[in-house]
Amino acid sequence: MTRAPGKPGLAVSPLATPFPELKTPPDTRIGVASAGLYGRPRPDVFVLRFRRSVSAAGVFTRHAVGSAPVDWCRAALARTGGRARALVVNAGCANAFTGAVGAGAARAVAEAVSTELGCPTEEVLLASTGVIGVPLPYGKILGALPDALYGKDAGLLDAAAAMMTTDTFPKGAHASAEIFGRTVNVVGICKGSGMIAPNMATMLAFLVTDAAVEPGVLHTLLAEEVRTTLNAVTVDGDRSTNDTCLVFAVGDPSAGAVSDPRSAEGRALAAAMRQVLLSLAQNLVRDGEGARKFVEVRVTGASSDASAAKIARTICESPLVKTAIAGEDANWGRIVMAVGRADEPVDREKIRIRFGELEAARDGQVAQGYDEAAMSAYMKRDELLVSVDVGVGTGAAVMWTCDLTHGYVSINGDYRS
Amino acid sequence: MTRAPGKPGLAVSPLATPFPELKTPPDTRIGVASAGLYGRPRPDVFVLRFRRSVSAAGVFTRHAVGSAPVDWCRAALARTGGRARALVVNAGCANAFTGAVGAGAARAVAEAVSTELGCPTEEVLLASTGVIGVPLPYGKILGALPDALYGKDAGLLDAAAAMMTTDTFPKGAHASAEIFGRTVNVVGICKGSGMIAPNMATMLAFLVTDAAVEPGVLHTLLAEEVRTTLNAVTVDGDRSTNDTCLVFAVGDPSAGAVSDPRSAEGRALAAAMRQVLLSLAQNLVRDGEGARKFVEVRVTGASSDASAAKIARTICESPLVKTAIAGEDANWGRIVMAVGRADEPVDREKIRIRFGELEAARDGQVAQGYDEAAMSAYMKRDELLVSVDVGVGTGAAVMWTCDLTHGYVSINGDYRS
Repeated sequence: MTRAPGKPGLAVSPLATPFPELKTPPDTRIGVASAGLYGRPRPDVFVLRFRRSVSAAGVFTRHAVGSAPVDWCRAALARTGGRARALVVNAGCANAFTGAVGAGAARAVAEAVSTELGCPTEEVLLASTGVIGVPLPYGKILGALPDALYGKDAGLLDAAAAMMTTDTFPKGAHASAEIFGRTVNVVGICKGSGMIAPNMATMLAFLVTDAAVEPGVLHTLLAEEVRTTLNAVTVDGDRSTNDTCLVFAVGDPSAGAVSDPRSAEGRALAAAMRQVLLSLAQNLVRDGEGARKFVEVRVTGASSDASAAKIARTICESPLVKTAIAGEDANWGRIVMAVGRADEPVDREKIRIRFGELEAARDGQVAQGYDEAAMSAYMKRDELLVSVDVGVGTGAAVMWTCDLTHGYVSINGDYRS
Repeated sequence: MTRAPGKPGLAVSPLATPFPELKTPPDTRIGVASAGLYGRPRPDVFVLRFRRSVSAAGVFTRHAVGSAPVDWCRAALARTGGRARALVVNAGCANAFTGAVGAGAARAVAEAVSTELGCPTEEVLLASTGVIGVPLPYGKILGALPDALYGKDAGLLDAAAAMMTTDTFPKGAHASAEIFGRTVNVVGICKGSGMIAPNMATMLAFLVTDAAVEPGVLHTLLAEEVRTTLNAVTVDGDRSTNDTCLVFAVGDPSAGAVSDPRSAEGRALAAAMRQVLLSLAQNLVRDGEGARKFVEVRVTGASSDASAAKIARTICESPLVKTAIAGEDANWGRIVMAVGRADEPVDREKIRIRFGELEAARDGQVAQGYDEAAMSAYMKRDELLVSVDVGVGTGAAVMWTCDLTHGYVSINGDYRS
């Protein structure tokens, strides 16, 4: 397991998964550099660039206080209609809540890279993660650009590691699909440990596919698949100012381009994107601050899928549910509590709750034959499944979360001396 | 400080306040008994009864999975039009999520007491707190009734102590008002430690006034004053199945009864009720599980009072804000994050954040002259004020919360051996 370059002293999450073998996509180059944004030497900047302008799409935080790089990407993608030549990512500074100074710093980085690459400024996308409230020290980034652009080629693992903050392991994923008679690949990397990390803000996820996809189609596919993957995980319910997910399609359109999200090719590519996004999303939870348990919450029988999602989110974000899970306590009463406070239609007399295959509650009361010993044994597992049927309809949703431990309080309490 | 009879081993909250001198109102008797609902001897039941039928009003959890006693009270108050002769309260069992068996158990208690007092069954109100999912062992309550009804008179402190669960101190308050040329009193007691306590559910609050008040007016006053008091505090955002606030007006109407909430008498009584409810509510926060800091959050400049309240609640319930406060870290970036994820209108370039009188952020960026040393010194206080102006309108709200500490995780983790 690669050791975290992020925050020194953090042990690697016991729920970590190994970084997969990921090949850099064709016509794509990755460069990593140290801009000195931390008080100690570590890679903290990477540039992902393409031989030519490629299709690009993004989804961003719906946070009302978006960061300068989020503002930049939204405007740039709107102006280009979904084209990009490069992406510059830094850790160590979120450039959020920094006003006009922060916006100017973001633009300075994009201008410098576009000058080097000879492309329009708005074809350079940006993402930042780190401390809120401090404008990006863009001079340091500019100083690191020669290394990142003209140094030796790096890989996706290097890029994933360069953007880690309180992450304890780098996160990557791969999937493939058959399109127009050939195999296309989707690779992705992400960072995040807590929906927003301490002092540092952000979930960042970047995907590249070697398929050729029209920009509008790429956006449709991304927006649809993010809903049940990155938007279906939660660590603490705290959403970031900088959350950014970008996808780039670098394939040569002369071999066939995906031009309809509902076509066979569109659906095949969507499935591969979903697989990558889901793996990345689940790894965010596995690296949740202080996490010791990986929990899947399935809600069925709701009045709609949206209602089921709201109930699932309320369960996943309940501090009482999360601390009970940390304590390996099959406290189904707290699940009932969370279900009820979601303010969604439920039939109290039909609620059913299971941990794994073990039934805890049925028909609105404790299950016949409830087996405390078996339940306690189940709760000792690292990976748990909680299923709740609320008895009113056919709406369903799945969400993933982790437990709330002393580790979370320690990491975020940051007890000053 | 009275020692907690609730959960053994819990230290009294450092934010605790002393129980005030409270006189039992006229025509009111209080009896406390031990029904054996805990594995060890402790007072766990009390009966509050009145010489005659009095005006009564209640507000209850909006939780979709209300408990049997909440169902009972709602129906009883609707049938009587707001009259009551007695209130029976027990700790040790919430009688929530217990189906028809639980409803029958609640009714059995009300029937037994109404038989003793010679009043309609629906004039006996009920409240329970304790474990969810276990039907009330009503035989034990019935066995304790002779003690509670015919034993020696107890006081409001005894009643407050008898309903403690994980509370670490009993909670009471008093206020008075001038009405119809005489001084009237409002006394109140409550329990709760976390909006819902571990395994045990509930905030319970009971008020008695010696004023005479028409039932409908009593309900109007209660509902209005609860909004900015009991409904403006939060420990963990987890709402209970059993939350109950009841008020009884025992005054003799021949001396003048409050018949209009907008009259001078109505407003005077409302102010006294508000004072009692606010004191009780703030004591719930002071006894928040693991609390070490008492925090007032004031939001101004919102598009409406409701919008301000939502922003204040989001700040108060953010795990990242609460852990930062536990760590005495003036992490205003996390306040920005919480403001933004409330999904309410804010002007990013006008946001202003203060800790006490110290300005942290202004005009959407770190404040000029931000003084880290002064800020750190301020954060060491037990009682903190966080003020946020979001720059779009005149909406305002105040909410109270506590920090999120290792104590919260330990209490709720209930690490099973």
